[in-house]
Amino acid sequence: MNLDKLLKPRSVAIIGANDKPGFGGDTTKNYLKFSRNQEHLYLIHPKKEEVFGKKVYRSILDVPEDVDLAIICTSQKTVLPLLEDCAKKKAGGVVVFASGYSEVGAEGKILQEELVKRADELGIAVMGPNCAGFANFNAGVFAFAFLVEERDRKGNIGMVSQSGQIVLGGLDTRAMGFSTVISSGNSCNVKVEDYLDYLVEDEDTKVVCAYMEGVTKPSQLVETFRKAAKKKKPIVMLKTGKSAKSQQLAASHTGSLSGADRVVRSVFKRYGVIEAEDLEEMMGIATALSWLRRLPEGQRLAYLCVSGGEAGVMADLTEQYQLPLAEYSPEVKAYLQTLVPDYGTVNNPFDMTAGIGYNTPVMVDAMRAISRDENVDALAICYTITPQVWDDTITHMVEAASIVSKDEDMKPIFWIPYIEHTRDVESADALKAAGVPLLPTGCYGCNALRKILDFAVFEFEDTEGAIPERLHKGSVGCSEYESLCYLDAHGVAIPPQAVAATEEEAVEAVKRLGYPLSVKIHSADIQHKSDVGGVRLNLRDEAGLRDAFRTVMDNCGKNAPQARLEGVLLKPMLKTGVEMIIGVNNDKDFGPMIMVGMGGVFVELFKDVQLACAPLTRKQAIRMIDSLKSAPLLDGYRGSEPCNKEALAELLVKISEMAASGREEIRELDINPVFVTPEGVAIADALLVKYED
Amino acid sequence: MNLDKLLKPRSVAIIGANDKPGFGGDTTKNYLKFSRNQEHLYLIHPKKEEVFGKKVYRSILDVPEDVDLAIICTSQKTVLPLLEDCAKKKAGGVVVFASGYSEVGAEGKILQEELVKRADELGIAVMGPNCAGFANFNAGVFAFAFLVEERDRKGNIGMVSQSGQIVLGGLDTRAMGFSTVISSGNSCNVKVEDYLDYLVEDEDTKVVCAYMEGVTKPSQLVETFRKAAKKKKPIVMLKTGKSAKSQQLAASHTGSLSGADRVVRSVFKRYGVIEAEDLEEMMGIATALSWLRRLPEGQRLAYLCVSGGEAGVMADLTEQYQLPLAEYSPEVKAYLQTLVPDYGTVNNPFDMTAGIGYNTPVMVDAMRAISRDENVDALAICYTITPQVWDDTITHMVEAASIVSKDEDMKPIFWIPYIEHTRDVESADALKAAGVPLLPTGCYGCNALRKILDFAVFEFEDTEGAIPERLHKGSVGCSEYESLCYLDAHGVAIPPQAVAATEEEAVEAVKRLGYPLSVKIHSADIQHKSDVGGVRLNLRDEAGLRDAFRTVMDNCGKNAPQARLEGVLLKPMLKTGVEMIIGVNNDKDFGPMIMVGMGGVFVELFKDVQLACAPLTRKQAIRMIDSLKSAPLLDGYRGSEPCNKEALAELLVKISEMAASGREEIRELDINPVFVTPEGVAIADALLVKYED
Repeated sequence: MNLDKLLKPRSVAIIGANDKPGFGGDTTKNYLKFSRNQEHLYLIHPKKEEVFGKKVYRSILDVPEDVDLAIICTSQKTVLPLLEDCAKKKAGGVVVFASGYSEVGAEGKILQEELVKRADELGIAVMGPNCAGFANFNAGVFAFAFLVEERDRKGNIGMVSQSGQIVLGGLDTRAMGFSTVISSGNSCNVKVEDYLDYLVEDEDTKVVCAYMEGVTKPSQLVETFRKAAKKKKPIVMLKTGKSAKSQQLAASHTGSLSGADRVVRSVFKRYGVIEAEDLEEMMGIATALSWLRRLPEGQRLAYLCVSGGEAGVMADLTEQYQLPLAEYSPEVKAYLQTLVPDYGTVNNPFDMTAGIGYNTPVMVDAMRAISRDENVDALAICYTITPQVWDDTITHMVEAASIVSKDEDMKPIFWIPYIEHTRDVESADALKAAGVPLLPTGCYGCNALRKILDFAVFEFEDTEGAIPERLHKGSVGCSEYESLCYLDAHGVAIPPQAVAATEEEAVEAVKRLGYPLSVKIHSADIQHKSDVGGVRLNLRDEAGLRDAFRTVMDNCGKNAPQARLEGVLLKPMLKTGVEMIIGVNNDKDFGPMIMVGMGGVFVELFKDVQLACAPLTRKQAIRMIDSLKSAPLLDGYRGSEPCNKEALAELLVKISEMAASGREEIRELDINPVFVTPEGVAIADALLVKYED
Repeated sequence: MNLDKLLKPRSVAIIGANDKPGFGGDTTKNYLKFSRNQEHLYLIHPKKEEVFGKKVYRSILDVPEDVDLAIICTSQKTVLPLLEDCAKKKAGGVVVFASGYSEVGAEGKILQEELVKRADELGIAVMGPNCAGFANFNAGVFAFAFLVEERDRKGNIGMVSQSGQIVLGGLDTRAMGFSTVISSGNSCNVKVEDYLDYLVEDEDTKVVCAYMEGVTKPSQLVETFRKAAKKKKPIVMLKTGKSAKSQQLAASHTGSLSGADRVVRSVFKRYGVIEAEDLEEMMGIATALSWLRRLPEGQRLAYLCVSGGEAGVMADLTEQYQLPLAEYSPEVKAYLQTLVPDYGTVNNPFDMTAGIGYNTPVMVDAMRAISRDENVDALAICYTITPQVWDDTITHMVEAASIVSKDEDMKPIFWIPYIEHTRDVESADALKAAGVPLLPTGCYGCNALRKILDFAVFEFEDTEGAIPERLHKGSVGCSEYESLCYLDAHGVAIPPQAVAATEEEAVEAVKRLGYPLSVKIHSADIQHKSDVGGVRLNLRDEAGLRDAFRTVMDNCGKNAPQARLEGVLLKPMLKTGVEMIIGVNNDKDFGPMIMVGMGGVFVELFKDVQLACAPLTRKQAIRMIDSLKSAPLLDGYRGSEPCNKEALAELLVKISEMAASGREEIRELDINPVFVTPEGVAIADALLVKYED
């Protein structure tokens, strides 16, 4: 659906315009105060002649030209009839503030469905209902329902939010400048995903900032993410509902370990979407990216402080947030040493002392020298933005930053204050003008910086998406034998195996397999074979094998009387190694996710797993493995021989490709354990859950 | 040393007083502007008659009365002679701003030692050198060297900081009110610990706020913590240098896992000291505790929001920061439901909607009902403190909070905003007046709240401290046999064992021990016995034993030619169970710390250990064990029988008592592994490192 008439209208009607507090009055007041496009604005009210000195029409039908956008400020029951009128004036967009739709339960849901249906038929893009409207600062259209302070808000952040209150929070944040802000409300026939896509495409938008509660168009969302990743346009996203438990009852470890929160986070990571943990962080990161003229080329920062104590605080924070410290080249270090008193030491974080910090020209020289150092990717000034009362330190530092920021080749500069409440508006404005992002304080600031730096070095590796095309319903678990056969059929190497319905068949099969071997019950109905006495290991001769066959069948007959027993599964004992788990979970929104982790209790207690979207590149697979806390176990732990990590990565890629191409078939898969040895990998057990339809 | 003359002087001299920018001028200006005690203030300058209209004396010796406190604003070389003059006027305290002491290296260190020596002889408490001074708002003495905005700063926070810049940051933070602020500088003959103790004792101080870089008087510090814990006076502490690696080369796992940061954190935890991660958090928590009229009695909060979106953000944050959510009683829930529109739902976090949030009397009723609910311990209003532009929501909410805060029995109320930059000063002041702490935003706010709530329910269990009385130097490792004998001698049950110097002795010893058993090299010089082929397990008969004896002696002779081999250690094979580690590390500052964790790779890769000060109470031991991520392994994991956690806790208590009483003897101890089974505990190996002197 084209959103141009909605978001960049040439002509606008406010339906229900008046001069009293409330949607109609406040919207009219806002529009008149903040919009450029006043000539083609038409106020509509059935009983008024004039509002705020402007002529009022009885009906939109009386307006002398076509109307691109109608802002409907009236109540729910008026909306549908008004929509018909709007269509007659060739409106392409309407904003509906009224509540009383899907947010009020079943009845409201029906009303909303009616609205969607009719809007679709009429070809009208509806923002809302139950929204707060939007403002397009470049088109000069301010169609927002809540009053805000008078201030120029034009800038390069594009914001969309399912909550109007959060848009208001953004508009009230002095540091932020916007291209467009959108309160999407109940998301009728235009979804958050559509607005996101619009903002990613929008040339006036440099940074996209989004608050999302739920996902309704995952494929489109991923396509938008891909577009943004390709042009490296940052998306800063706050997604709630992460704490909600996954509704899907998972049969596999992988299923239970890839809840909605982990899946969403993996998708974000895949496309370099910057995830914020709260509103302050979302606003802070978006603002920083908005002010910043270019991204740093690496993550090695020089931290400049003017107090030993504060440098100490910063040192702990850089360690806590794993911010790499630049190591000055010997020449730069020597030069900086000449600028500080005898007792000063050039460290990173660097206590510049009064020698540099209280003196604009010296600080300019120091910053230029640091910027020229090839071991430095960016600078961070760490100083509280206090009002300028006791001396000129802050003035000197802001001045110095402003001067050097004009240099063509100056590397990016960030500013991290220690205490927020003292923030001085003038200094903040000067830094904004200089393109020096003023980050939030301490932990917040460092966390924001960490995310910005990760985005700065993010390299997008494009692979085909793998979201299933249809929603699958029932599912059915496969036996270990079937699961392994499925892997085998899809080119994944599995150890030899055989099934035997009778003792004799078992004895016969061993001729091919050899001893020692294991006997496990063969039944698609039994998933936890040990729990019902369905496993015998390390069998070394025929007597043992026969005994095992009988015992296993007996045990399962008794302990799982409902299960259909198909015999036993015979497999040679594998050389054990490091016990890993590889799994697949086909997320209902984002399709197959692949998981890798250390097996056994590691997976369950420490949840030391990595999750990513399938398919994987080899590089991504290696990165997943190396990100495990338990990764050192693979690298030759305590003098043992290093395991074949390459083989593990290859298997991971292979499974991820199988998961992607089998996305309409595989619901869940656990390969658990897979043994990793110095020689390679060996799959010891597998559990596949397939879609039934 | 008594600090009364220093911090609560009846008469004060400013030496070097003048009217130009700099220490002398700024201090004089500050003193005249902010101090009450003007009558007994004497300005001293050798060449001036009058400064700011006030008479100037040529020398402190000319002052007509005795002087309690001299503020020395002059340079380093003048300090010692002035100290003599001050003594003649019976001064009990001096403040020295001058730098050029221990912070500038070896020469300065000598100057500082001279200063300390002379000050001690003269009985003068010296603040600084290289400090920014102090202000005692209750005594009305403002002896601070940096200019600050004109504002009333009197309050109940006592602050001490090794960094003057950080004190300035506090003074510049509008929300904070102080009893006393102290910049301790280089800490001469009065240490940070002394000031801390003063503030904990000070009746005008309700909350102690401290920035510390290093500890020089650990025993006194711990005594101060104990005092504070007993009267439940909060200490909010920011301690830097946590990222510095422990200098001590550790022989044991416990040693390497109890670095300075973990030790300090454990000491803080022991005494309920609230640790802040950065300045913003330190200021935020101290401010909240300062505003709060009483602590909540529990942690179950009702979170009140006015937006579905923001309630969603809050829900995720409460989960992330493990903030328990109150569950309304049915009556309160039903009542609240009557206050919101049909579509509103009473959840926690609760979107109050306009029905409550935009209406003071309704909000007052709602808050009173919530406060009366026995399932609720406190309330938190979650709303950004925006300027009051678009409607009166913020006014209504601040008003409602102010009204109910006057109720005798109102439970504590907190306020958490979402976005900081918009903070409205008037609303903030109103909340301060109402005793409703305005916390930092989002993550910061929740983290601060988490720590405040932990402090609120902290119950101090006093046990005797165990810091060694003297510094020990060398240390010597014991063999496994000696280590186990040490435990045995101190009442810790160990399995049977024997040492054998010859094969025949070994065969003889087995008569007592029985098979199966293990043979390990017996040598104090070999700590990693497996690495040199010094271990044979599961020996079941004499032939095996003899062979093992020879192999082990042979291997070690070859692989550790320098080691003195005393024979072998024989021990029956233990029934294995859950493999744990218990350890002791005698911290050079804080004495014996006890550690418990899951053994093997858990300890090394996941660092899943808990550390605490020895000795432990049984309750503390249980809490440590339960805090391990791997604790479920002890509780009967995957259908296995639960282990005897009681026995493990008893052993932990026993070892902690041994560590406390043996604090002049034990440097490090690893008991690794100790097997925990359903029946009890069994120590399989131990490594003791004793002090040499």
